[in-house]
Amino acid sequence: MAMQFLSDNAAAVHPALWEAMARADTPDAPYDGDALSQRLDTAFSDLFGRPCAVLWVATGTAANCLALATMVPPHGGVICHREAHIEVDECGAPGFYTHGAKLMLVEGEGAKLAPAAIAAQLAGIRGDVHQVQAHAVSVTQASEYGRAYSPDEMAALAALAETNGLRLHVDGARFANAVAHLGCTPWEACQGADALSFGCVKNGGMNAEAIVFFDSALADVARYRRKRAGHLQSKGRYMAAQLLAMLAGDLWLANARAANASARHIAAAAGGRLLHPVEANELFLRVTAAERGALRAQGFVFYDWGDDAARLVTAWNSDPAHVEALARAIAAL
Amino acid sequence: MAMQFLSDNAAAVHPALWEAMARADTPDAPYDGDALSQRLDTAFSDLFGRPCAVLWVATGTAANCLALATMVPPHGGVICHREAHIEVDECGAPGFYTHGAKLMLVEGEGAKLAPAAIAAQLAGIRGDVHQVQAHAVSVTQASEYGRAYSPDEMAALAALAETNGLRLHVDGARFANAVAHLGCTPWEACQGADALSFGCVKNGGMNAEAIVFFDSALADVARYRRKRAGHLQSKGRYMAAQLLAMLAGDLWLANARAANASARHIAAAAGGRLLHPVEANELFLRVTAAERGALRAQGFVFYDWGDDAARLVTAWNSDPAHVEALARAIAAL
Amino acid sequence: MAMQFLSDNAAAVHPALWEAMARADTPDAPYDGDALSQRLDTAFSDLFGRPCAVLWVATGTAANCLALATMVPPHGGVICHREAHIEVDECGAPGFYTHGAKLMLVEGEGAKLAPAAIAAQLAGIRGDVHQVQAHAVSVTQASEYGRAYSPDEMAALAALAETNGLRLHVDGARFANAVAHLGCTPWEACQGADALSFGCVKNGGMNAEAIVFFDSALADVARYRRKRAGHLQSKGRYMAAQLLAMLAGDLWLANARAANASARHIAAAAGGRLLHPVEANELFLRVTAAERGALRAQGFVFYDWGDDAARLVTAWNSDPAHVEALARAIAAL
Amino acid sequence: MAMQFLSDNAAAVHPALWEAMARADTPDAPYDGDALSQRLDTAFSDLFGRPCAVLWVATGTAANCLALATMVPPHGGVICHREAHIEVDECGAPGFYTHGAKLMLVEGEGAKLAPAAIAAQLAGIRGDVHQVQAHAVSVTQASEYGRAYSPDEMAALAALAETNGLRLHVDGARFANAVAHLGCTPWEACQGADALSFGCVKNGGMNAEAIVFFDSALADVARYRRKRAGHLQSKGRYMAAQLLAMLAGDLWLANARAANASARHIAAAAGGRLLHPVEANELFLRVTAAERGALRAQGFVFYDWGDDAARLVTAWNSDPAHVEALARAIAAL
Repeated sequence: MAMQFLSDNAAAVHPALWEAMARADTPDAPYDGDALSQRLDTAFSDLFGRPCAVLWVATGTAANCLALATMVPPHGGVICHREAHIEVDECGAPGFYTHGAKLMLVEGEGAKLAPAAIAAQLAGIRGDVHQVQAHAVSVTQASEYGRAYSPDEMAALAALAETNGLRLHVDGARFANAVAHLGCTPWEACQGADALSFGCVKNGGMNAEAIVFFDSALADVARYRRKRAGHLQSKGRYMAAQLLAMLAGDLWLANARAANASARHIAAAAGGRLLHPVEANELFLRVTAAERGALRAQGFVFYDWGDDAARLVTAWNSDPAHVEALARAIAAL
Repeated sequence: MAMQFLSDNAAAVHPALWEAMARADTPDAPYDGDALSQRLDTAFSDLFGRPCAVLWVATGTAANCLALATMVPPHGGVICHREAHIEVDECGAPGFYTHGAKLMLVEGEGAKLAPAAIAAQLAGIRGDVHQVQAHAVSVTQASEYGRAYSPDEMAALAALAETNGLRLHVDGARFANAVAHLGCTPWEACQGADALSFGCVKNGGMNAEAIVFFDSALADVARYRRKRAGHLQSKGRYMAAQLLAMLAGDLWLANARAANASARHIAAAAGGRLLHPVEANELFLRVTAAERGALRAQGFVFYDWGDDAARLVTAWNSDPAHVEALARAIAAL
Repeated sequence: MAMQFLSDNAAAVHPALWEAMARADTPDAPYDGDALSQRLDTAFSDLFGRPCAVLWVATGTAANCLALATMVPPHGGVICHREAHIEVDECGAPGFYTHGAKLMLVEGEGAKLAPAAIAAQLAGIRGDVHQVQAHAVSVTQASEYGRAYSPDEMAALAALAETNGLRLHVDGARFANAVAHLGCTPWEACQGADALSFGCVKNGGMNAEAIVFFDSALADVARYRRKRAGHLQSKGRYMAAQLLAMLAGDLWLANARAANASARHIAAAAGGRLLHPVEANELFLRVTAAERGALRAQGFVFYDWGDDAARLVTAWNSDPAHVEALARAIAAL
Repeated sequence: MAMQFLSDNAAAVHPALWEAMARADTPDAPYDGDALSQRLDTAFSDLFGRPCAVLWVATGTAANCLALATMVPPHGGVICHREAHIEVDECGAPGFYTHGAKLMLVEGEGAKLAPAAIAAQLAGIRGDVHQVQAHAVSVTQASEYGRAYSPDEMAALAALAETNGLRLHVDGARFANAVAHLGCTPWEACQGADALSFGCVKNGGMNAEAIVFFDSALADVARYRRKRAGHLQSKGRYMAAQLLAMLAGDLWLANARAANASARHIAAAAGGRLLHPVEANELFLRVTAAERGALRAQGFVFYDWGDDAARLVTAWNSDPAHVEALARAIAAL
């Protein structure tokens, strides 16, 4: 029997979301004119303690790229990490949505961006028309390696962005996991952002993500861009239902805490094999091909990560027995 | 109590689709690597009696524009009706997906394109680099006014397209309604097409449409473009489940027949008020503002269509009592 | 011997421009850092009596489309005449430069736009995200049929644009001819414009046009877009030299007056054959195929204009003998 | 008095080109229908010993990006050097012309690409739809550091490209300098290329570059794209005149040899200060800020290259006295 640690992105949908979608199964206004969609701004404004304008879309790629398209002109650039999802895993979607803006790649430990690295990148750009000028920074909370930015780190990034006239985007495909880890408020985990891609799919959703705009002027542009990109679903109420169900009773945090706890349990067994501290629900382990084979022989499913490592991801519904089995199996390698 | 004739695009989801989605609620490979998504090509190939390559997307706009983007270069053009959805109601999405290709607008009764009108449009284009050259034709089956192209009409369009080296796209947001009306095979209703946007949402789906490519080379391009557009959902199996449930036992035709029958019942009562023959599930009625007010006062919900008309749309689940009430109310005007 | 009335766009270069280019043939800073390019803002500001920011480019298409790209977002639209050059003769360049914005086509006598026609177009656009919203108007001075907008007409267009929050672009490929005809100030002939494509090539230039921005913020964007479009020539000083030579001593008006006078001389002989009043340097004559053959047999070179007409264009250097010969030949038809 | 070593891109125009342009100053067909433009294919086919389809454009950026746009789809990528002009100095023009294709940056000594480095880049790309796939390679001959690819090196690149199904583009802004240095045939210096940006402006031209397509199908696309980009000048004959004058009697090689000889003369004096072997007309010298100041005090004009170096460029018409003076000044540092 397969024990799934491949990704959180294909896990089952949380029962509360199924119920919310079922309740939405009566006619209402199409697109985002329905009662549920109309409730999103308020729900997220309450969550973040400030005015939010919120648009649902079906994927994180759409969320990231629609947000970026409101921040950077076609002739501009977005500073991001070399291993950011927008650079590595979206088939050039930022180039599509921004009409050719450039991703400006910066290195940083744990796939995190440090203000000094951003500043160095900025310093290397001549301020003339021959070079693409940076207009925005995009960071991932938690990062591609499951690392969280602390509130202080976010504050420093926000300050740097503001000083340099840059917009700030936060890719929060696993924002819930970061907030659950940090124990801070949602706003502290993305403070200074102009827009946040608030992930739901990896956290028990079916096919809804929220773009949370903290600057409503950007949302006004994004509404047209969303339609233009074919992301304005006519039965959007099923997406709104998912998002509202996630926020209700802080289900989003409960789900993330469960996934994080599973990851920590495995991490405790992995000890020195960990390539990165575990601050979310992803584990990167130093394991040989033979060791990976041994794990797979026991039924564990996961990705190779280069030649000498593996990536394992827990989900909101990771089976505790599988988690325990994995922890033991790793300890026994 | 509201009696809904606003649009089929916000109706409830068919129970069989709910059940299929529920069955899909176990982990499987992400994106379109799951067992359900992998079954789509075969299912549609069986339906159309020829090899198909099928991609799910969430909306008809995405389906139309991804298909067109595989057919026309950025410097080319697509011939379509002046009132086509891609021209009027997609916020310029074809321009986005094709990178600026031009929609070349042609008139035609009932929002249908006639070969002669297309030929005249082609004749008006100088074959030099100063003018945009046509690369494709897009027709809507059933049309924006609920008119169906007969198999013979489709064959004539296909012949014209082939003669002129044009690709052929069929926007089938209400393809089921057209096929149900025509009583022909699915292929006869879109014969010659290189790609068909096979609608599901308006026919009892939640958020899945199929792009059916009859030329697999186009599908190979569309796969990258879909990802790049943020339309490759990681839990795509819920979309595949909807589409397969639609095809199972020809539910798609049963739903369409139900909607069409409702529309015909109302049409019979409308008599000379009909602006267009009813060949699908849409009715366009000549009614004054006062008459519209009278209908609304009785609880009927629908769109105005200019100053002197109304558009009424039935759905797979239109309540027979509402349909009957509407028929009587119109007859009584 | 051929007598050229084909187009002003292939005429010889005026001697004063040759001399100016020759004087520029010493090293200077590259791109637009040279002394001549640096003088353009002042020269055009003097001409228009208000602050201008001026960029040279090589073609009218580039001028028009770079200007439009600063005025309209990719999801927006530009209202223009159905026969405007940007719609008919630029191979979709506006779609390229604006990243897919839509040209919204309006009819109007003499290829001119009337405020009422624009207002009607605006009234037909629903203000929702499903339809492309207009962001700018583009008019051609003189129009595709050689018709000039009077100062009052320009003022009315400007007022309408301002009322509706639309930017105003003037395609002035033959702006000189219009001003020469109107006898007004240059600003009166384009008043209210945010940007003017100031033509030079058709008026005795080699390969330089000026984009005159009356809103410097748009110019600041255009500078990046010009580079990005490959229109920032490293030896830009030869283009600046052409433009400055055109302005010196109002050579631009002298050239246009000469071309206009030639056209008027022919027009006087054409009488009732004229399809449009001659207000610039273009003539549209009702002539049968046989009559066109007769004219060509005498050595006159020109374009057919559909089946029953011809277009004849005079240039700054039209040979008076050819003009006289043409006038006589037409009178003798 | 300033002694210019800033760049070859702002030097005077060669007298033979002035004469050729003057001879072109009689009316002919517009755009590229004139006799001179029509002669280009033959002239370049003779030069390269194989069928060529040639388009003039005004800048190297336009030449590079139009060529690339015919080779790579919007969802694809182009492998190039991290310091390539298309990446560093074109304000994102490749992203504009290709509609968002990605430049895939590879390191290499002397700004040259080695097959092994390209192969390693290719090996790092997963062949799934989540990652951008490479469709072309672009190399610069001579490179940004004035390094030439030998015929053997070009052959190896061409073989690698073919093996991997990649198109090959050569940015030849200083192609003449490379060929002059290598002493090989023009084709040997770009063998395997699908298109070459054949530089003229830096070699004594005013504003004409040639895109030489060795695959005519690409040229057929480029013709539309050139118009659409506003690069189809109506008086194109003046550009064709420049290019033909360059080829006549191998003026292009004579000019390049002169520039190269000047560079070598300075290089001989620079000795160990050279950061790169001098294989074209560019010198990169290790010089302190104080030394740069000393050189500038003597009237030499050039760019800093970071903190500890300078870039000096000779031109076809570098004054021998200036060259000699510079050589002595450097030797005396």
